[in-house]
Amino acid sequence: MSLIVQKYGGTSVGTVERINAVADKLVDWRQRGNDLVVVVSAMSGETNRLLGLANEITPNPTGRELDVLLSTGEQVTIALLSMALAQRGVKARSYTGSQVRILTDNAHNKARIREIDAARVHTDLAAGYILVVAGFQGVDEAGNITTLGRGGSDTTAVALAAALNADECQIYTDVNGVYTTDPRVVPEARRLTGITYEEMLEMASLGSKVLQIRSVEFASKYEVPLRVLSSFEEGEGTLISKEEQVMERAVISGIAFTRDEAQLTITGVPDEPGVAYRILGPISDANIEIDMIVQNIGADGTTDFTFTVNRNDYAKALKILEETAQTLGAREASGNDKIVKISIVGVGMRSHAGIASKMFRALAEEGINILMISTSEIKISVVVDEKYLELGVRALHSAFGLESETISE
Amino acid sequence: MSLIVQKYGGTSVGTVERINAVADKLVDWRQRGNDLVVVVSAMSGETNRLLGLANEITPNPTGRELDVLLSTGEQVTIALLSMALAQRGVKARSYTGSQVRILTDNAHNKARIREIDAARVHTDLAAGYILVVAGFQGVDEAGNITTLGRGGSDTTAVALAAALNADECQIYTDVNGVYTTDPRVVPEARRLTGITYEEMLEMASLGSKVLQIRSVEFASKYEVPLRVLSSFEEGEGTLISKEEQVMERAVISGIAFTRDEAQLTITGVPDEPGVAYRILGPISDANIEIDMIVQNIGADGTTDFTFTVNRNDYAKALKILEETAQTLGAREASGNDKIVKISIVGVGMRSHAGIASKMFRALAEEGINILMISTSEIKISVVVDEKYLELGVRALHSAFGLESETISE
Repeated sequence: MSLIVQKYGGTSVGTVERINAVADKLVDWRQRGNDLVVVVSAMSGETNRLLGLANEITPNPTGRELDVLLSTGEQVTIALLSMALAQRGVKARSYTGSQVRILTDNAHNKARIREIDAARVHTDLAAGYILVVAGFQGVDEAGNITTLGRGGSDTTAVALAAALNADECQIYTDVNGVYTTDPRVVPEARRLTGITYEEMLEMASLGSKVLQIRSVEFASKYEVPLRVLSSFEEGEGTLISKEEQVMERAVISGIAFTRDEAQLTITGVPDEPGVAYRILGPISDANIEIDMIVQNIGADGTTDFTFTVNRNDYAKALKILEETAQTLGAREASGNDKIVKISIVGVGMRSHAGIASKMFRALAEEGINILMISTSEIKISVVVDEKYLELGVRALHSAFGLESETISE
Repeated sequence: MSLIVQKYGGTSVGTVERINAVADKLVDWRQRGNDLVVVVSAMSGETNRLLGLANEITPNPTGRELDVLLSTGEQVTIALLSMALAQRGVKARSYTGSQVRILTDNAHNKARIREIDAARVHTDLAAGYILVVAGFQGVDEAGNITTLGRGGSDTTAVALAAALNADECQIYTDVNGVYTTDPRVVPEARRLTGITYEEMLEMASLGSKVLQIRSVEFASKYEVPLRVLSSFEEGEGTLISKEEQVMERAVISGIAFTRDEAQLTITGVPDEPGVAYRILGPISDANIEIDMIVQNIGADGTTDFTFTVNRNDYAKALKILEETAQTLGAREASGNDKIVKISIVGVGMRSHAGIASKMFRALAEEGINILMISTSEIKISVVVDEKYLELGVRALHSAFGLESETISE
């Protein structure tokens, strides 16, 4: 007898037919002897419909009232799914975030879970109920309804799994697992059977949008085994867990990339203490997020400085940098918004030498010029001209043998 | 400084425009120095949309989950109205039934309010907030969401007004008050400025559907002054209050009627103890509600028995009565579903003699034959052929001088 927390997103419960399909699936899991807690999102389209109503009232809805409004989306789903289960002769009971109770801080629209009081949940599980919990929402100390922000249903599921000490947290989505890279770019991309939390975090932050980053952090912190599966087809999906538990041990787990970066460079900056701050401070002050940063020693006691920002912020950032260049007496501020970032991710890097050089050789063999390099413990990222994106990803996918189940050391 | 509870029904908050109009009205009331608690229903159409979803899932939704589902309707409205008030620079805060907390029994879909814990409400009022409360819903001891049944928002408003000891409870609706009778039947019908709780209860139970009966009972029990007004036009509406407080003292306040009755008669029943029960018991057992009952002494130690039921139950009731007639050895069971009931209502009856004879004379002068008569302390009802409905109501309206503001004694 396992205790399993499952989460179904908006697309999986987007219509009455799909809610019925989820109910059928749950009956099946139940009949195989599992205790079940199910977290659901709002039916797809519902959150946008509600936001539309709010926007008709005011361009700046109060955070508290927006949460009261949006939380109705999941409340509708939990009621309908519980009805569908009852209709199938299965005992089920719905819970809003406040009923569970999922206690959060009072940061409306982006609240963080503080504590889950699972007493009532345990009582109902012991009495044989399937519990259907509204994702994405909670309640603060004062009893105000809060929401965790978009995608927060994943976090609700993981937090519940942690609080209930569940055997597994399963996230049902519209893809059947985590892939070595985007199959639209590399047709040979392969579903991973297992991946570590850290790898998943790097993949997610690098643009693989299977799971919310925060839910992976949560799972990692509480060591909740997390499985990504498809709502629409059978399969084992991908299990995200601690390093020791990942059976498949490739050096590199996957290749992530992001197209929405732009690069900015300032050259000939007098090399003095505090110069990095004087360059990047004005950018941050303008609420522009900086991703990669590289500093090189230039000629004549000057330094060259390169960093990347989101492509949407490119024009704004370049303007600021040009002003900074004047102030600092730098040689030139320039930029390039036709670049992409490609990253290889894998915990195997820690114990294997020569991964970086293998990466650079694979790219060189295709004639791809590397514009920037940045590394972390389990990740190497390069910036290249955007025309090389597909070629680069395919070359790396093949160089690290990701298309085959056989593990390349 | 008055504390006023206002209630706006589904039509009054049916669109974003109307919600904005309600917000404007509230700002106006606020600027005139009033403390305000506003109870709102779901936007018109929303409850039916949600019921439609439930019905797609199952023809028999569980009561608990239906309440979870339907309560989202008002929750959307409280959020939107609170946003609209904030947009106008007015401090406002929304409350679900559970947040207030409106404690009910656990009879899902038709719960009754047990207690209102108004502590938090008082705190927020003192801090200058307009409170926007979801009507129609509450929470039971165990924390389950309950609903009071259709129209329950009126009851929420009155119960809150009672708990808060409000100066007045105002019910905004699509009519501008309580009329002497239905203006579609009598164009001269006049809006009443005041009416007593008892009169309103008789009017409501006789088919004038301005207010939910339960909310009037509640108002009467706790002596909450209750005012019916239009959401869409200016005006004083009609104040429903204790007899001592009603300024306008006509003998008759109004004329109510109902078209959906049918009459059943059993004649030549042996006149023995218990015969009434043996006739009406089987009708009640079939869940048919009986309205008027008249028993007359017939010839030869027999008795004749006549009663009315809802017209929808006529065929079923007649069949049962025919069987009873056989069992009891009665002469005949017969019926008539082409009848209507007309009633005059007024607390003035208590102190004025000759009201009944005035009523009967007015009908006789129009050649209207009375089929049944039934009286209560403040009401006289007659059953007549349905073709006489309009003629009868107009004759009575005129006979009792209801079209004029001058009070006829």
